[in-house]
Amino acid sequence: MLERIRIVLIGTSHPGNIGGVARAMHNMGLTDLALVAPRCDAITADSISRASGADSLVHGAHISASLEEAVSDCSLVVGASARSRTLPWPMMTPREVGSRLPTELQHQASRVALVFGREDSGLSNAELQRCHAHVHIPTNPDFSSLNLAAAVQVLAYECRLSWLEQQDQLEQQNRLEQQAQAPDTTEEQQPLATHEELEHYFAHLERTLIAIGFHDPATPRQLMARLRRVTLRSRPERMELNILRGILSATEKAAGQVAMGQRTSDDIPPNSDA
Amino acid sequence: MLERIRIVLIGTSHPGNIGGVARAMHNMGLTDLALVAPRCDAITADSISRASGADSLVHGAHISASLEEAVSDCSLVVGASARSRTLPWPMMTPREVGSRLPTELQHQASRVALVFGREDSGLSNAELQRCHAHVHIPTNPDFSSLNLAAAVQVLAYECRLSWLEQQDQLEQQNRLEQQAQAPDTTEEQQPLATHEELEHYFAHLERTLIAIGFHDPATPRQLMARLRRVTLRSRPERMELNILRGILSATEKAAGQVAMGQRTSDDIPPNSDA
Repeated sequence: MLERIRIVLIGTSHPGNIGGVARAMHNMGLTDLALVAPRCDAITADSISRASGADSLVHGAHISASLEEAVSDCSLVVGASARSRTLPWPMMTPREVGSRLPTELQHQASRVALVFGREDSGLSNAELQRCHAHVHIPTNPDFSSLNLAAAVQVLAYECRLSWLEQQDQLEQQNRLEQQAQAPDTTEEQQPLATHEELEHYFAHLERTLIAIGFHDPATPRQLMARLRRVTLRSRPERMELNILRGILSATEKAAGQVAMGQRTSDDIPPNSDA
Repeated sequence: MLERIRIVLIGTSHPGNIGGVARAMHNMGLTDLALVAPRCDAITADSISRASGADSLVHGAHISASLEEAVSDCSLVVGASARSRTLPWPMMTPREVGSRLPTELQHQASRVALVFGREDSGLSNAELQRCHAHVHIPTNPDFSSLNLAAAVQVLAYECRLSWLEQQDQLEQQNRLEQQAQAPDTTEEQQPLATHEELEHYFAHLERTLIAIGFHDPATPRQLMARLRRVTLRSRPERMELNILRGILSATEKAAGQVAMGQRTSDDIPPNSDA
């Protein structure tokens, strides 16, 4: 699907922006770049540097003289535009463009074009009227002019999200079909602690808090309830619970040694040379 | 809401990227830019040119020496990361980050940080482990390194979409309330612990674990990372964190008394077989 989405740049004047667009496209898995009447060389040190490894897209860009020529094989043409125009046109959000792509591109021969205008003046009215719909990236009204590569980045990102969602759906469909035929294999994941393990932990915790003098069951002040809540909220894995119990044992040992240490004056404790 | 989302750039080395980030932020209505240990000057001809009118953000950027300092007042810290890391961490999509913001930022004092790493090497593991969650922008696996300003653009775009949706909902709610003419009472909620409070807790935890002989910094075995993960997952409230710190102090006291108890007998250090 992604290889049949064409990014069309009209009248670009900065080579760096062409490189930046190529990088944004390649990052999102798009490959088809078309330049209409560029006002600068496409292949310069600056464009290749900004492409940062996506220079194959710059080298492979198709250059044409007119928008008509660049989008002649496309069944849907969407132009990037500011919101208000004299003649109202069907408007889409970037997300709506993304979600429409799987249907638009279900036939192998179909192509979609996303058209971006000049850095200084955008698309002309004549160009906008050659589009099926306009897409507006929501921006701060006080500072609405996006960098060209940034605008392509946002649209390309929405294209990729839509494609990933489609892949997920296909995978799920396949899995359901396979499950109907074969027995399932369980996913590998760290097992969560069971209810019983958690209860053992809380009992151990309470004993330890009593041993270190932090908790008095006679005046509980909701202490154990609060500790239960914060612990349960994190859904501990079994392995994590084992670490926490290890800490409790080490604490008990320390507290136990205190008790014995206090006894030292009269009795003879273990590990003492006395 | 948008003014309380901080974009944090760590170790940026190209001034142009700082300018590009400022432009992307301002386009989406974000204003709070923080630079941690930048490896270049923030204010250069290149950064101002790429900011393209958003230079007030570059001039107003807060520069600090450490990530801790930059995010100390933030209750949610999300680090931009590639997908796979040795220790799995809660992962969010950019869309999930956006949709979580209205809840995270409902208190006027709360702040959220989105943290971006170096152009060449991203965020270090230590930096990633200081984040509550990681966000991964879905990219072409064969060409996954986004330009820094492009990555900020995508996240800032999701922030704006979420804010716009919230504005829509508020408007709708206001309309409904005006119709019903009944003042509602909002539910009171406990404030979450800030990043700084959490870091103090983790430092206290580590000291205590050393004191009770459970942790040896020389052979850390990812212990602190695992404890960070399970703790951060529960998003502790400030009050809950106070309880946990109380437990640590009581434990330290117990362990300290051991040391003292043993010292009274024979000057034997804790955990010694002598």
